[in-house]
Amino acid sequence: MITSTEIKFIKSLSQKKFRDEYGVFVVEGEKMVQEALNSGFEVEKVYRKEDIGEAAMARISALSSPSPVLAVVKQHSRPFKAPCQGLYLALDGIRDPGNLGTILRIADWFGIDAVYASEDTVELYNPKVVQSTMGAIFRVPFYTADIPLLCSSYKGKVYGTFLDGENMYKKDLEASGIIVIGNEANGISEETAACVTDRLYIPPYPADDPGSESLNAAVATAVTVAEFRRRG
Amino acid sequence: MITSTEIKFIKSLSQKKFRDEYGVFVVEGEKMVQEALNSGFEVEKVYRKEDIGEAAMARISALSSPSPVLAVVKQHSRPFKAPCQGLYLALDGIRDPGNLGTILRIADWFGIDAVYASEDTVELYNPKVVQSTMGAIFRVPFYTADIPLLCSSYKGKVYGTFLDGENMYKKDLEASGIIVIGNEANGISEETAACVTDRLYIPPYPADDPGSESLNAAVATAVTVAEFRRRG
Repeated sequence: MITSTEIKFIKSLSQKKFRDEYGVFVVEGEKMVQEALNSGFEVEKVYRKEDIGEAAMARISALSSPSPVLAVVKQHSRPFKAPCQGLYLALDGIRDPGNLGTILRIADWFGIDAVYASEDTVELYNPKVVQSTMGAIFRVPFYTADIPLLCSSYKGKVYGTFLDGENMYKKDLEASGIIVIGNEANGISEETAACVTDRLYIPPYPADDPGSESLNAAVATAVTVAEFRRRG
Repeated sequence: MITSTEIKFIKSLSQKKFRDEYGVFVVEGEKMVQEALNSGFEVEKVYRKEDIGEAAMARISALSSPSPVLAVVKQHSRPFKAPCQGLYLALDGIRDPGNLGTILRIADWFGIDAVYASEDTVELYNPKVVQSTMGAIFRVPFYTADIPLLCSSYKGKVYGTFLDGENMYKKDLEASGIIVIGNEANGISEETAACVTDRLYIPPYPADDPGSESLNAAVATAVTVAEFRRRG
């Protein structure tokens, strides 16, 4: 059973202001809900199609084909942990929900120790972000941070990709460091760029003809992180 | 000026059946329209906000913030060219428009010679595909093909990524071949998998703990293609 108040409440969670107010978010799908239940996140309530009916499920689901199960999960804020020994991502204004979700999934696959995101990065609990993490949201430590401050106070290397950077394959890459990922349209901000110690470039093929002007932010993240892990 | 018939016509192009019927598609944004004009594609008409007015632009635009310029472009079918010497992608059922667009952008950056897509791959002229190619649609040769047939009749190597494949970094990779990209949910189909000569795996980090069960299809494409091109 589900009450009309609950339906209204769950529907309201598609808006950031209500997610903020109640400190919860929505997770959909068998696999995602299972991962939520097995994670350190607190699951407030699980709704299954067989219990609440198909019509109610269609009303509370944000997906075009409603999933068989949906959960309301408490937002989880970890005590802030500054980067030290490890490989980290710093997101400097990622705006596309699909990109943020995909970056968390990449971070999970390649064992990134934590992801730090600027205030102007899209909200972690946006339903599109949550679903595109494919569960990585429950595993990858994620913090909001002042990225220029984080990078400038970091003792190790700060890497970033730039169109005028050096061929990544020919550079020494340390196993520990922060990799900065820039905004989809504008790249790494000037303030953050000033803290980057090693400017990298993903060489196109052939080397003098990229065709496209750039790679998608999540794609550039993947190729860069894969290269770090390939060495290590 | 723009007539109400034109507005209706352009709006109809958000649907595949009308794109098919008229053999055209819509491109938005200054950069994309410029690339269309500089490409081998035939641009039927360009609409600029300063000519038609903001209200009309908002009506014909598919974007949430209407771009200043929109073009209606003729679909462009190249005479089919089978893969020979070169590096190719074969898409075995890519369903997400953003993924297809991103894959074309990757293909463009890394100089892929042609992209072949199965019939059940999302339509190339879907507005979300077009916009996420960031112009690569005008540069990368794209063909619809029977992927199992294409792969089985190909004389060279056929690569594919599988969760039980071999560590990509330890494999010989030839500069010429077809790389098969599987469907987002189900991976490479059985029929296509039977034609794959070299099964690859993108190692997670640490090697025995991927965290996520898989990478996004476009991300896996990027990491794999980058590795081929890295070898030269």
